[in-house]
Amino acid sequence: MKKILLTGFNPVKGIGDNVNPSYEVVKNFGESFLDSQILKLEVPTEFIQSREIIINAIKEYRPDIVLSIGLSASRLNITLERVAINIRDGDMKDNAGYAPRDEKIFEDGQDGYFSNLPIRKIVEQSKKMKIPMDISNTAGTYCCNQVMYTALYYSNNYYPNMKCGFLHIPYFPEQVVYKSNTPSLPFYISKKAVETCLETTLHICFNS
Amino acid sequence: MKKILLTGFNPVKGIGDNVNPSYEVVKNFGESFLDSQILKLEVPTEFIQSREIIINAIKEYRPDIVLSIGLSASRLNITLERVAINIRDGDMKDNAGYAPRDEKIFEDGQDGYFSNLPIRKIVEQSKKMKIPMDISNTAGTYCCNQVMYTALYYSNNYYPNMKCGFLHIPYFPEQVVYKSNTPSLPFYISKKAVETCLETTLHICFNS
Amino acid sequence: MKKILLTGFNPVKGIGDNVNPSYEVVKNFGESFLDSQILKLEVPTEFIQSREIIINAIKEYRPDIVLSIGLSASRLNITLERVAINIRDGDMKDNAGYAPRDEKIFEDGQDGYFSNLPIRKIVEQSKKMKIPMDISNTAGTYCCNQVMYTALYYSNNYYPNMKCGFLHIPYFPEQVVYKSNTPSLPFYISKKAVETCLETTLHICFNS
Amino acid sequence: MKKILLTGFNPVKGIGDNVNPSYEVVKNFGESFLDSQILKLEVPTEFIQSREIIINAIKEYRPDIVLSIGLSASRLNITLERVAINIRDGDMKDNAGYAPRDEKIFEDGQDGYFSNLPIRKIVEQSKKMKIPMDISNTAGTYCCNQVMYTALYYSNNYYPNMKCGFLHIPYFPEQVVYKSNTPSLPFYISKKAVETCLETTLHICFNS
Repeated sequence: MKKILLTGFNPVKGIGDNVNPSYEVVKNFGESFLDSQILKLEVPTEFIQSREIIINAIKEYRPDIVLSIGLSASRLNITLERVAINIRDGDMKDNAGYAPRDEKIFEDGQDGYFSNLPIRKIVEQSKKMKIPMDISNTAGTYCCNQVMYTALYYSNNYYPNMKCGFLHIPYFPEQVVYKSNTPSLPFYISKKAVETCLETTLHICFNS
Repeated sequence: MKKILLTGFNPVKGIGDNVNPSYEVVKNFGESFLDSQILKLEVPTEFIQSREIIINAIKEYRPDIVLSIGLSASRLNITLERVAINIRDGDMKDNAGYAPRDEKIFEDGQDGYFSNLPIRKIVEQSKKMKIPMDISNTAGTYCCNQVMYTALYYSNNYYPNMKCGFLHIPYFPEQVVYKSNTPSLPFYISKKAVETCLETTLHICFNS
Repeated sequence: MKKILLTGFNPVKGIGDNVNPSYEVVKNFGESFLDSQILKLEVPTEFIQSREIIINAIKEYRPDIVLSIGLSASRLNITLERVAINIRDGDMKDNAGYAPRDEKIFEDGQDGYFSNLPIRKIVEQSKKMKIPMDISNTAGTYCCNQVMYTALYYSNNYYPNMKCGFLHIPYFPEQVVYKSNTPSLPFYISKKAVETCLETTLHICFNS
Repeated sequence: MKKILLTGFNPVKGIGDNVNPSYEVVKNFGESFLDSQILKLEVPTEFIQSREIIINAIKEYRPDIVLSIGLSASRLNITLERVAINIRDGDMKDNAGYAPRDEKIFEDGQDGYFSNLPIRKIVEQSKKMKIPMDISNTAGTYCCNQVMYTALYYSNNYYPNMKCGFLHIPYFPEQVVYKSNTPSLPFYISKKAVETCLETTLHICFNS
């Protein structure tokens, strides 16, 4: 039985949200999916604390797959990230009041790590399922990128069989009614996107 | 019993679509809605023919409400139009191969006509219903604007009690999987938006 | 000798600017242009006061041409407006602290008035001059639209020979260095755009 | 005397251009800049050939600085790239008719390499000079990214003192008059941006 660590974020204070769609989707999963065990984690939108939380979860659970979900407030569809980079940088303070400038996430990490999920296959399969998903070539330099980088750093350095990736989802439509010019997609599409990521990864990487 | 003329467009050849979400939503209505009769019309994406079709439908059915739906391929949410203008103009040929340049729709029409639907109330009610809808101040200069202008021209000149308006909806998510960077919202949200337009108009304008 | 009233706006408090590019361009004109007299006016970004200032300037100067310039913070090129509508409406307070909701500008005004500048010729001529200008079909519902509507209301009701129009210009590049994701064009292009508007109008409408 | 390799691209067939602003800026430099020697190179917008051309130029000239310039048709300002990734991938065929899918640029290259230009200092200095420049976290997966990656691969593996980076510039205004909704900035701003990159790099990295 494979173990899947699914992570989402808590609401981002800096943009005044009280719900983060990423954890809403994670929360909705049960304890298992396609004969794999699901471990759910709500990660704080804080640079310092979230890195430790991800490291501890990986060390404790030893997951086969780490799929992290995050909100992108500006992208028009769902995007699966290709690469995480060794930078934390942001103009907007995180939930702990911290705004790092061009810092490394791990002193000894490589500049970038590619996701080792089968991202092209996942995107192709999603399109077949009528889910509007594309590959993105930047996860930014905020907490989303850091979660993805941290998992890939552990995969590259300690757990080479651990498959890690990151999916950006937009707001839900009901969240944007009082925001101007903000794209959205409903819960069920983002949920189906996460399921397709997991199913394709289990199939391609673990023959299950 | 009130009569509602609901119009949508056929697929737009110039952008290679084979389904127009606007008529998909219209088609899904039954023969009545909230004790009003629904008359459904699929309008061709052609300047010359569509004007005549709308005029004939208005003269024949004498609807109390004309609500026209159209596709906006670029807007991020659902938009209810405030004004139609006496222009047809377009760089892209219509389905009949015609690309008018700065033509009037009606020689004796006013430059612009405001929608006489209760647009602010509709938008407020939609937001309460968690539908991401806003007022738009331009319906463009293509077939969408022409349908709206034509109905309002008839309302202003001949049938002052006829309430007319236009709602722009985005693509459905399943339509954009092979289009890059195109926003979308699912069928059920656009359907609910049209229902809210009708319900609010019936309530505010006809006490029903 | 023709009289040209050129108007720009003062800085918009709500977005924290201390320079409005529209009046910078106006200010740079001399007292005459191509044998016509230039009258320059800095209009406050206030609904109530600005309407009176425009009316008074029109009544006092009796200009042959009113060309108003305003800032669009989001458009990618220079846009010449086709139509002004009888609405003032805005979520952001004006410089006097006023945020009107769906008000008419003139109780007895038509819903919309088309610019009576030769807008297509101006845009074509601008493109020949390598100025990136297009026609826009909405001047919004803020102070820009109100200035344009007010001049056209006077033209349509009292001074039929008065030619009126509105040009939206972006920020200057030096204004956006600390704004994120904001388009800009340099002063000299916007200046040349205004000159081309005036020159084409003088040529087409006044044979001069 | 330091040697600077400045590269731009030839026009991109797939989007129908006959001038590429990136090489226009490069071409305009003289044979020296601030006591450094300038070597100019027009790189074809072709994956296979351009990689060889860059490698050969680096081996032959042994430049101290490689600054490559490329066109971004959609970004609103000038962007200095932070990272290049070991991927070539594109839906649009290059000028040789080739559209790679998820290929590595160098089999033994790392997933990503950070620019070793002082990118933060360059952006800060540019802002002081009123040039609208920001850091970008993706150079895409097309020929631009490949040129940047190739130079950084050589820097990381063979010439550790060679400073390499990439600057994306928009179209010139005169190029977008017949393109719809396309941002632009004039030649002189992009030229000044390139000069600021070079001057800051010479100052910070070479004390000159």
